[in-house]
Amino acid sequence: MHIHGGDIYNYQGGVENVLDFSANINPLGIPKNVIRAAAEGAAQSASYPDPHCRALRLALAQSEGADLRPENIICGNGAADLIFALALAQKPQKALLLAPGFHEYEQALRAVGCQIDYHFLQASAGFQPNIDELLRQVTPEVELLFFCNPNNPTGLALTRRELLPLLERCRQCGVLMVLDECFNAFLDEPADYTLKPLLAQYPNLFILKAFTKIYAMPGLRLGYGLCADCGLLTRLEEVSQPWRVSTPAQTAGLAALQETDYVSRAQALVKTERHFLRQGLMDLGWQVYNSQANYLFFQCPNQPDLAAACRARGVLLRDCSNYVGLTPGFYRIAVRTRAENEKLLAVLQQAGERRPNQCSH
Amino acid sequence: MHIHGGDIYNYQGGVENVLDFSANINPLGIPKNVIRAAAEGAAQSASYPDPHCRALRLALAQSEGADLRPENIICGNGAADLIFALALAQKPQKALLLAPGFHEYEQALRAVGCQIDYHFLQASAGFQPNIDELLRQVTPEVELLFFCNPNNPTGLALTRRELLPLLERCRQCGVLMVLDECFNAFLDEPADYTLKPLLAQYPNLFILKAFTKIYAMPGLRLGYGLCADCGLLTRLEEVSQPWRVSTPAQTAGLAALQETDYVSRAQALVKTERHFLRQGLMDLGWQVYNSQANYLFFQCPNQPDLAAACRARGVLLRDCSNYVGLTPGFYRIAVRTRAENEKLLAVLQQAGERRPNQCSH
Repeated sequence: MHIHGGDIYNYQGGVENVLDFSANINPLGIPKNVIRAAAEGAAQSASYPDPHCRALRLALAQSEGADLRPENIICGNGAADLIFALALAQKPQKALLLAPGFHEYEQALRAVGCQIDYHFLQASAGFQPNIDELLRQVTPEVELLFFCNPNNPTGLALTRRELLPLLERCRQCGVLMVLDECFNAFLDEPADYTLKPLLAQYPNLFILKAFTKIYAMPGLRLGYGLCADCGLLTRLEEVSQPWRVSTPAQTAGLAALQETDYVSRAQALVKTERHFLRQGLMDLGWQVYNSQANYLFFQCPNQPDLAAACRARGVLLRDCSNYVGLTPGFYRIAVRTRAENEKLLAVLQQAGERRPNQCSH
Repeated sequence: MHIHGGDIYNYQGGVENVLDFSANINPLGIPKNVIRAAAEGAAQSASYPDPHCRALRLALAQSEGADLRPENIICGNGAADLIFALALAQKPQKALLLAPGFHEYEQALRAVGCQIDYHFLQASAGFQPNIDELLRQVTPEVELLFFCNPNNPTGLALTRRELLPLLERCRQCGVLMVLDECFNAFLDEPADYTLKPLLAQYPNLFILKAFTKIYAMPGLRLGYGLCADCGLLTRLEEVSQPWRVSTPAQTAGLAALQETDYVSRAQALVKTERHFLRQGLMDLGWQVYNSQANYLFFQCPNQPDLAAACRARGVLLRDCSNYVGLTPGFYRIAVRTRAENEKLLAVLQQAGERRPNQCSH
């Protein structure tokens, strides 16, 4: 079984005593109004959820802009649910992934027997994709490309201008480009990076988004997809149960879309704290890559048990050694609040030092 | 798109003004402690849900008995989620379904390109399955059988003694028998009907259950499966996202398992009201089949617009004409509380009468 970040339930010291940097969600935590709305949704849960998420899709169409209509939007039980639905609806023979990348792309493709080609991101290139090579890897034999922007776990992002040739190449080759923008809102200039304005022109573009990260509500499970190709959206419905988005998720999502101040505060906080945390990691002498998201990706080659050593001190990191394309020594940490980040840096400093022989006396 | 019962959100008069007999859930409504627990789960939702539902599976193992261990239990985003996971994990070439039956079996099998054989239940036999014919239809070419007991929408149930030859025949032929017991708790004698005691002997048996119906929490999405074959359970995990059961669903599920008095009260109420409602339908002169569950299945051949006529009066029925194997004129209604059932009968009486020419004056 693949091990992810964020599994705090397995922590021996108790869920309430752990500081979780292994899941990369908004450090401000879930907004109070969102909790309240989810609780109201729970009270309404003696009825089935709206299978068409009508109210939520209408609100999303308004908040997303870009001339989107509710019929261009599909909601899922988290973005991961839509990843599996995409694989099942398309049943591609061959797909292209970046490595390292989010594990669920591969898992969903394997579930339908798909062959996978990788574009390996190179540590020597700072994990920046090689666009020319990527364009060569997009061929008519490839049916689907998952591209995460900013990438997870590296945090590197490409601008719309940089991504456009890839989208165009996908169109020419008949490749569905699934662009995962779940972390877009944490970038300093989200509008420069999203391909949302190109949806209408590119029916081969499917943009994946989630409430999970930006509204800090991973426990509620709510993601969505944007696409101009209504035929694809219908096929996604055909391979999914009708009630996959719970009532609390739907009511919470509606409330979340009102939280514009909260999002602005999170963006400002992440911008400041990303710099603070990056500097702290660099001061520890470790290789920190150029993440532009709400998490940092770094290499600490000299302490192979860094994650275990931090865990023993009540702090969880994402050990990235189980990503395709990575070796032991790579880690991802969330950007959190100043006090939490300071605690992390102190723990990292202790844990990063090779422990003296414990049997010395 | 297949139209199900329970979609109250599309009701013109407003969700709060509709009396929904189209969804077959516990008439007592969602227990207060379950709502409270779900709200607490919402407040904890800034963390990912436990991907392994550890606490819930442990509690289920204790409450289900039958020597079940947590590793024999898998939880899903409603039972429907597990139906799709079963189809995707097994990718059967050919499967056997009863018709009429729950639509999602067929939808999930179609999603993986499975050929479907039907055992057609006959109105002339009161929709009772023909076991001899069913045994002949189970062959080594069939890889999977979905069997719902009591069946939905008919409500007819077979005892363990009656089902055993089918389970044995499935084992002989290498057929996975997915037994949907989501409505078992509404039977007058649930223990006589469940195949749970046979799980250990029959690794080809997968029992599907849900919190949805008996705890009246369809909006929260929580189902589970019981199986002795841990290899199958691992394959189900492999084709599913890790976080498919939300935190509110998990906390609500834990609270629900404490509600033993509530379940007893529901069973007593359903028993009384099923008889009352059946008699009322028979008094209207309609053919009522022998449902033993918390819903009744009947035929009203003379009023083809019965559902629409009831809807206009604020009452929703499940029009069953879109089930494979049924024609217009078949309906399913939930068994609810006495006052609601009386209202339903009054509305059915009005709606069942052919309306006089509305242009007569």
